Amino acid sequence: MPIQPRLTDASAPRFASSAIRDLLDQARQPGVISLAGGLPAAELLPVERLDVALSGALDEYGAHCLQYGPSVGEPALLEALALTEGHDVEGLIVTAGSQQALDLTLSILEHDDPLQNLAAVENPGYVGALQVLRARRYRLLSIPVDADGMAVDELAAALVSGARPQVCYVNPSFQNPTGASLTPERGSELIRLAEHYGFVVISDDPYAELHLDGPKRNPIPDSDRLVRLGSMSKTLSPGLRIGWAAAPPPIRSRLELAKQAGDLHTATLNQLAVASILGDQRWWTDHCHGLRTSYRSRRTALLAALERALGSDPQAKGITIGDQAGGFFLWLSLESKHGDGTGSTEPDSIEIARAALDNGVAVVPGSAFAADPSTPPRAIRLSYSSAPVADFDLAVTRLASHLTA
Amino acid sequence: MPIQPRLTDASAPRFASSAIRDLLDQARQPGVISLAGGLPAAELLPVERLDVALSGALDEYGAHCLQYGPSVGEPALLEALALTEGHDVEGLIVTAGSQQALDLTLSILEHDDPLQNLAAVENPGYVGALQVLRARRYRLLSIPVDADGMAVDELAAALVSGARPQVCYVNPSFQNPTGASLTPERGSELIRLAEHYGFVVISDDPYAELHLDGPKRNPIPDSDRLVRLGSMSKTLSPGLRIGWAAAPPPIRSRLELAKQAGDLHTATLNQLAVASILGDQRWWTDHCHGLRTSYRSRRTALLAALERALGSDPQAKGITIGDQAGGFFLWLSLESKHGDGTGSTEPDSIEIARAALDNGVAVVPGSAFAADPSTPPRAIRLSYSSAPVADFDLAVTRLASHLTA
Repeated sequence: MPIQPRLTDASAPRFASSAIRDLLDQARQPGVISLAGGLPAAELLPVERLDVALSGALDEYGAHCLQYGPSVGEPALLEALALTEGHDVEGLIVTAGSQQALDLTLSILEHDDPLQNLAAVENPGYVGALQVLRARRYRLLSIPVDADGMAVDELAAALVSGARPQVCYVNPSFQNPTGASLTPERGSELIRLAEHYGFVVISDDPYAELHLDGPKRNPIPDSDRLVRLGSMSKTLSPGLRIGWAAAPPPIRSRLELAKQAGDLHTATLNQLAVASILGDQRWWTDHCHGLRTSYRSRRTALLAALERALGSDPQAKGITIGDQAGGFFLWLSLESKHGDGTGSTEPDSIEIARAALDNGVAVVPGSAFAADPSTPPRAIRLSYSSAPVADFDLAVTRLASHLTA
Repeated sequence: MPIQPRLTDASAPRFASSAIRDLLDQARQPGVISLAGGLPAAELLPVERLDVALSGALDEYGAHCLQYGPSVGEPALLEALALTEGHDVEGLIVTAGSQQALDLTLSILEHDDPLQNLAAVENPGYVGALQVLRARRYRLLSIPVDADGMAVDELAAALVSGARPQVCYVNPSFQNPTGASLTPERGSELIRLAEHYGFVVISDDPYAELHLDGPKRNPIPDSDRLVRLGSMSKTLSPGLRIGWAAAPPPIRSRLELAKQAGDLHTATLNQLAVASILGDQRWWTDHCHGLRTSYRSRRTALLAALERALGSDPQAKGITIGDQAGGFFLWLSLESKHGDGTGSTEPDSIEIARAALDNGVAVVPGSAFAADPSTPPRAIRLSYSSAPVADFDLAVTRLASHLTA
């Protein structure tokens, strides 16, 4: 059977409103328990340590903290990131979160004719990436995700069939939303394809440190076709807006100019405070260990609540829970009782999420993550990262009846 | 004589390296006095007040300072800006400096076909704006600047001749680099043209508070075709990266989605610290008053050094000093002895700046600000904002011989 690359309509709106953000707005109503957002737990944000780091930076660097700085970032942070993350300083650039690193990378890879822009993406995939890809006028080549991450063989087939993306975007560890991780075999094959067909792989890895069941993963080998994105948002603080790209020097030079044009540089003080925290290696190692312990316990609590509500064999009820090895989320795939859904009257994921919200629990519908809107997944994403653990049982009780309706 | 709109070549590089940044790199050599950069004086950056504001925000808001926040900005800062700047909260969005506010505004005004993108700009004009316009693939319609700001009658003539920019970018107060300010008559005419021809005026006003000789200016009347950009970079701190756009609600909604796609939101802690400082109205008013006193004294010192080096009638030597009523810069236009320069062997502004740098003083050549690279101004920009005042005489002595060569 010939592969049909699934291409989105180029006339899709460039600035579609984020379903996650809209739902988060509603999820803030009093009495609603939110399993929707991808926020770190408030109690794991190290307010006092940051206060010390900020005052320390102001003491040490004085007015330099408040002054203009280089577009690639403060040398102190570049060096700290190089050490912590194992990158070359010459390839690093500091950005306002990995979201901006993605935006800048997409900007420098744009074709002169926007109709030629094409990105291979995981389907389902991270909403924020889909959003910036659409804002940058990329059409999307949707590649399915299974238990081993992006189905790289399907990407290979699309390339053989003539698809020519200039970029492929992946979450290699604990993918948002499915929780799946790319295998090293697939990571190597992805790079082989990138080098053969001449596209750039963007590996966006914000959950890298949140490996709850095994060692830190690194499934994608180095290549001059690879840009690695990272973020302090899941480990230290999203509100500081510190992320980075690690890129081959020719790409990094173009990122520097794009960063300069876009916002000159990332906040100096924030960079110096993060540099000082990363430089405190004992504290940082202990902090990341503590995060894993806390999120592991949150994950276990949400799985236990699901088992109490759905029984020990949710698959008997048509519910499959995705990979749980790290990150912030559980992905619940809901079996359709009507095959391909033709003529079906059963609720789709948005209707399920709306009904659950009416019942006092917020979740994100699978359709929010659909790279190909014509085939939205019948699934929901639950976050264990930030709601009070004491509310998990009540939340799942409110949710359960809507999953099997 | 028919007006010839001066259009840049659409094949110009999108990410030209910034001449200012390259020169600043060289200007950091030991022994060089830099009159090149547009940095605030280090001694005017309120390090201790910021330290108090940051600790206060962490005390008051706790983990909220480190958490994800809304794409339009923190409510506390939006309200403080509305009060201080006299904008509607509903029209405001917080950005990473006014540079990002400009980038986002250009992004939402882009045509589907990038070849159709056209922006009217001041010539000479702010380098950072020219850079982001090129990065966003806008062709430039260059409009001259005279002592009353952008020559709006020349823009009108270009419009009558059929030019159809979707945007017009201006610095209304103490324009970078010429120091000229737009008159209210021209401001009103500009808005009349915008409403008639359906383009958007972007008024980027980072020097608004640095009115050294008269009251604060506001030459452009409100309109649903006007986006006002502002910045804390010249008053409080560039390193915090806090700016804003004040826009009609339909434009603001699109800016919100573009901001969300680009970097989610501006750093939460930085926003709350700035909100607390703006809320301390007595301190803020006194601080801005003190800035004006200091920059007025710096300007006077640089003018006096120029008079000592060039005599009381620099025009007799072919040197015209531009408007000096505010901001950070003096603009020295250098008369050409060879008319239109055809066959001339006299040095252009880059050669002058290079020779000055070899002699130990850094300045920015006029050509860096050329919206139309085919007619670079024979001029240089001197900054009085950040070099030690005690060095002004030596700097100008080193420079003087190169200006009249």
